[in-house]
Amino acid sequence: MITSTSNARVKELVQLQKKSKVRNEQGVFLVEGVKMYQEIPQEQLVKVYVSETFADKQKEEINRLKDRRKLEYLSDHVFQYVSDTKTPQGILCVVRQSAYCLEDILEAEDAHLLVLDNLQDPGNLGTILRTAEGAGVTGIIISKESVDIYNPKVIRSTMGSIYRVPFVYVEDLKEAIAKVKAHGIFTYAAHLDGKNSYDKEDYTKKTAFLIGNEGNGLRKEIADLADTWIRIPMQGQVESLNAAIATSVLMFETARQRRNQG
Amino acid sequence: MITSTSNARVKELVQLQKKSKVRNEQGVFLVEGVKMYQEIPQEQLVKVYVSETFADKQKEEINRLKDRRKLEYLSDHVFQYVSDTKTPQGILCVVRQSAYCLEDILEAEDAHLLVLDNLQDPGNLGTILRTAEGAGVTGIIISKESVDIYNPKVIRSTMGSIYRVPFVYVEDLKEAIAKVKAHGIFTYAAHLDGKNSYDKEDYTKKTAFLIGNEGNGLRKEIADLADTWIRIPMQGQVESLNAAIATSVLMFETARQRRNQG
Repeated sequence: MITSTSNARVKELVQLQKKSKVRNEQGVFLVEGVKMYQEIPQEQLVKVYVSETFADKQKEEINRLKDRRKLEYLSDHVFQYVSDTKTPQGILCVVRQSAYCLEDILEAEDAHLLVLDNLQDPGNLGTILRTAEGAGVTGIIISKESVDIYNPKVIRSTMGSIYRVPFVYVEDLKEAIAKVKAHGIFTYAAHLDGKNSYDKEDYTKKTAFLIGNEGNGLRKEIADLADTWIRIPMQGQVESLNAAIATSVLMFETARQRRNQG
Repeated sequence: MITSTSNARVKELVQLQKKSKVRNEQGVFLVEGVKMYQEIPQEQLVKVYVSETFADKQKEEINRLKDRRKLEYLSDHVFQYVSDTKTPQGILCVVRQSAYCLEDILEAEDAHLLVLDNLQDPGNLGTILRTAEGAGVTGIIISKESVDIYNPKVIRSTMGSIYRVPFVYVEDLKEAIAKVKAHGIFTYAAHLDGKNSYDKEDYTKKTAFLIGNEGNGLRKEIADLADTWIRIPMQGQVESLNAAIATSVLMFETARQRRNQG
């Protein structure tokens, strides 16, 4: 059992919590909590850290672990030190990052894609990922300036969808959108100045939604690449919706049209 | 100018930030930031506190204030002390609470209501309020155990909709739902066990959605009162959506149906 916060492994865990650079260099990320642990695809599980108290109280969870060499115990004090939450559940895992490539995402038969331009809020990205799985999104393309999907706050909001929804970060979002269009996927910019109400479009064909930053919306040079601009009609004095809310309305309209098709 | 954190007014502001009991006794709440200040209905504005720096830099905002007796200056240090945010904008207002009654909400001609059962997350309630205004919701009925709508975190997420969407807290949610139904408003429980997909219902008639708590959903005794249970069909392994997301999907489906009607 590791009992000191100056242990080299403990220091590394803290780095992995805080720094996306360290996560990406090692090709791993951290998840906390029983549910996130249970849903890890076995081949991606690198290491499981449990607190003393967790080890005492949740023996059956520990017994489920197939490869016991992956298990490491931390004193409660050390666990609290490495945890990202105020009241940790006592289980923290190192998980190998998923490697999706843009080509795979573009070749989905019933493509239903999100293209995220410079999204900054971790809670929004996590909520979008979780909702995307529920709405049947086939892949997410993310500009490299966006918040890191492996940020602990994103992970918490994804509720396990992080393991299942294909996503890819791209260096050049314009180039990626050109490829989306070249694959016969129709691109819609969600834009306050959109001429067409979102519910007047046909999303039963291959569809990608371009979604902008929380404060500023889509960058003009990105929005200009879209085949069509759409807007969500708004009542009252509301100028815009939260990015995760707007994206959800579009995703579930797509799911609705596809269910009711033919 | 108030320069001491032990000033009686400063102490009162801190109490108003932290305690819903104090807010409700005085019938006021606090808002921060220029946008929230600009949107306050004049008759509800009780007092405006600005920091020294704000007073120097944003003279035009201060000049817009009609009744200068409502203005009070705080040193930057004191302002930071009373502010609920890490990087305050330097303007904080005391606003009179709105008084809506249940009867007014029930008599809306095209009633589109939300009934919130024990909602706990301030961000969710704020986002629901903001989205509700955009989707044309006519009123929100909230169980008294729910998070306080005047909690500073709720206020921040509402983006000004707090001033415009009618809402009411009720002691007895069952009794309130009985009244909703007695007014000819059709009640739908958003429920994971709902038999009907939400998009197969007709929301052009008077409609109320019953929305449950983030962790546990609707209490059974509340869900049992609904005319119909509906669900949002979900793909993948997603068990449930975030409460604000699920509510938004229902509200915008209602808005869509009503726009496209007749």
